[in-house]
Amino acid sequence: MRFADGLPLRSGASLAGYELVYETYGELNAARSNAVLVCHALNASHHVAGTHEDASRSEGWWDNLIGPGKPLDTRQFFVICVNNLGSCFGSTGPTHVNPDTGRRWGADFPVVTVEDWVDAQARLLDRLGIAKLAAVLGGSLGGMQALSWTLRHPDRVGECIAVATAPNLSAQNIAFNEVARRAIITDPDFHGGHYDAHGVLPKRGLRVARMIGHITYLSDDSMEAKFGRSLRNASGAGRGAELAYSTQDIEFQIESYLRHQGDKFSEYFDANTYLLITRALDYFDPALAFGGDLSAAFAAARGKRFLVVSFTTDWRFSPARSREIVKALVDNRIDVSYAEIAAPHGHDAFLLEDPRYHGVLRASFERIAAELTR
Amino acid sequence: MRFADGLPLRSGASLAGYELVYETYGELNAARSNAVLVCHALNASHHVAGTHEDASRSEGWWDNLIGPGKPLDTRQFFVICVNNLGSCFGSTGPTHVNPDTGRRWGADFPVVTVEDWVDAQARLLDRLGIAKLAAVLGGSLGGMQALSWTLRHPDRVGECIAVATAPNLSAQNIAFNEVARRAIITDPDFHGGHYDAHGVLPKRGLRVARMIGHITYLSDDSMEAKFGRSLRNASGAGRGAELAYSTQDIEFQIESYLRHQGDKFSEYFDANTYLLITRALDYFDPALAFGGDLSAAFAAARGKRFLVVSFTTDWRFSPARSREIVKALVDNRIDVSYAEIAAPHGHDAFLLEDPRYHGVLRASFERIAAELTR
Repeated sequence: MRFADGLPLRSGASLAGYELVYETYGELNAARSNAVLVCHALNASHHVAGTHEDASRSEGWWDNLIGPGKPLDTRQFFVICVNNLGSCFGSTGPTHVNPDTGRRWGADFPVVTVEDWVDAQARLLDRLGIAKLAAVLGGSLGGMQALSWTLRHPDRVGECIAVATAPNLSAQNIAFNEVARRAIITDPDFHGGHYDAHGVLPKRGLRVARMIGHITYLSDDSMEAKFGRSLRNASGAGRGAELAYSTQDIEFQIESYLRHQGDKFSEYFDANTYLLITRALDYFDPALAFGGDLSAAFAAARGKRFLVVSFTTDWRFSPARSREIVKALVDNRIDVSYAEIAAPHGHDAFLLEDPRYHGVLRASFERIAAELTR
Repeated sequence: MRFADGLPLRSGASLAGYELVYETYGELNAARSNAVLVCHALNASHHVAGTHEDASRSEGWWDNLIGPGKPLDTRQFFVICVNNLGSCFGSTGPTHVNPDTGRRWGADFPVVTVEDWVDAQARLLDRLGIAKLAAVLGGSLGGMQALSWTLRHPDRVGECIAVATAPNLSAQNIAFNEVARRAIITDPDFHGGHYDAHGVLPKRGLRVARMIGHITYLSDDSMEAKFGRSLRNASGAGRGAELAYSTQDIEFQIESYLRHQGDKFSEYFDANTYLLITRALDYFDPALAFGGDLSAAFAAARGKRFLVVSFTTDWRFSPARSREIVKALVDNRIDVSYAEIAAPHGHDAFLLEDPRYHGVLRASFERIAAELTR
């Protein structure tokens, strides 16, 4: 959907006109009250559920959660997922042409924030004639958008479901983002972000960035259980006899796995988008304007109902970070439920099908659906 | 010291002749019984204590621990630290000339392992006329060497003090090493490890590698306490007003710190050495030859006395990994003391001056010294 009106950005810059691509699932009811907005995380798109007719293995990134009869049941809810500005999956971003110059935006695309995304999503809802969301749902960076909705547009949100997220990034979180960015920016094929003009792509940097990210998505334990010290060419018997003694070749299966993840990612993801999205993560900090007082920040959300979910082995956004959110809500006497799910999979758990996790979400959406029809 | 005899390596290769540089502190006693070997970790050298006359800020890397009156008291012990083979601080390594080709070894330097280092150190002790060490001490990768001494040369070690180490790397540990190696190897200036012939250095890769490593040396909490979300250009008042909204420039102090660490490292460290030393870490696994049974592996160490030290916030080599070592020793009825130090600094704690930590080491060395004179 095309938006001709300029979008004022938090940085002070403005985006003159822009395109937002989105998908919807289910039907909007007559009262226009059953819409659920799902916000995506770092490398995901608006394709959150279902499959594309013309492609195999095209399940949406949260297809295990969203669909007919699933925890977020599309027989009851009208689900919307918007590709965020600055992304590389259809909405206006660095790979698009800047109308002012006739060249691709590249590194000149303005820095976008979680708040900017939320405002753009709100405008899309205006166009769709949706005054108020039954719920906003997101995991990780998507959870930050869900939280931000309750602060920027509190009258337009019924419930907020924030999964595996944090009220801001820790120094360690920023550190990992920065190393990934340096890998991209110092790739000689990056050319200051204008690689397109040089006919190249900074794939080396993207590969390393993805490998770093991937380590933080998995728990130490799940990586150990899945790969351990298994050798790539292990024959089973005679452990160790197969060692290649090489510094540059793959020796362990975990190396092979990470290289594969990096290679795949570098084929489809845009480097400038990676920089933009990691920066949006870095900048998100609703407490900043309140001198670091998260409880003061969440005073604006009074009246909403929240569900906060964390996973015990998530060391990227640990349960302690979710409990900070819960405390700030409780300080404001806001209705909040908190589920800390014992799951071995680390941060990635929010994308996986865990019966207790999905059970909590199913129960919440069933209650929301029941309240809609009252 | 020059060694003309070939050193057979674990990989099956052999090093025809080699140089080992080392430093000693204190005096060897008449009985030649007071020698303590200190083994170094990833990026350290033989310069473990004291200062160099001609250089400011030249304190050895463990100078807070080793010296007259310090926990490892050089008035009582003869302390030896050897630069390991493959390093870039003087002992034969990739930056040296391969006598067979007349060119620098570069990527052709043979893969060296913890066991190879220990064997080379043992030969050095032969030359120094030291039949048996009062103790072998090391932290991190140095701790792995200390452990290996008790398995390869059990009759030549009195005590083994293994600090902040592990019986092998976890999948996550290998993963971090692999990402660092990929950053180096895919740097276009790496040239397959023969950058010297091209007159360049793969500094971009080394910078990223060091930044990744550095994140794993610090605890999440200590990084938070030291940097948090502080902005580089924060004026103090008006938090947030100073945001630059840039994807490529430094915004947070943690970014500035990491870039500085990466820059410094890339100026003095050799890329091929980085690959070799991270591989030595990957390969260390004394249980491998025993079907993964660490207790069976440590049967060879029977009769030794061990001190194992870990730090609560070390997530690189967590206390759980040290407890695996302790269990394997206890299974063999080997005399072992274990100290788990509550310290906020993560893996780096082993290099810092913590009174409880240093107290434990001081008490151990005082006992060892007392036993020497009995």
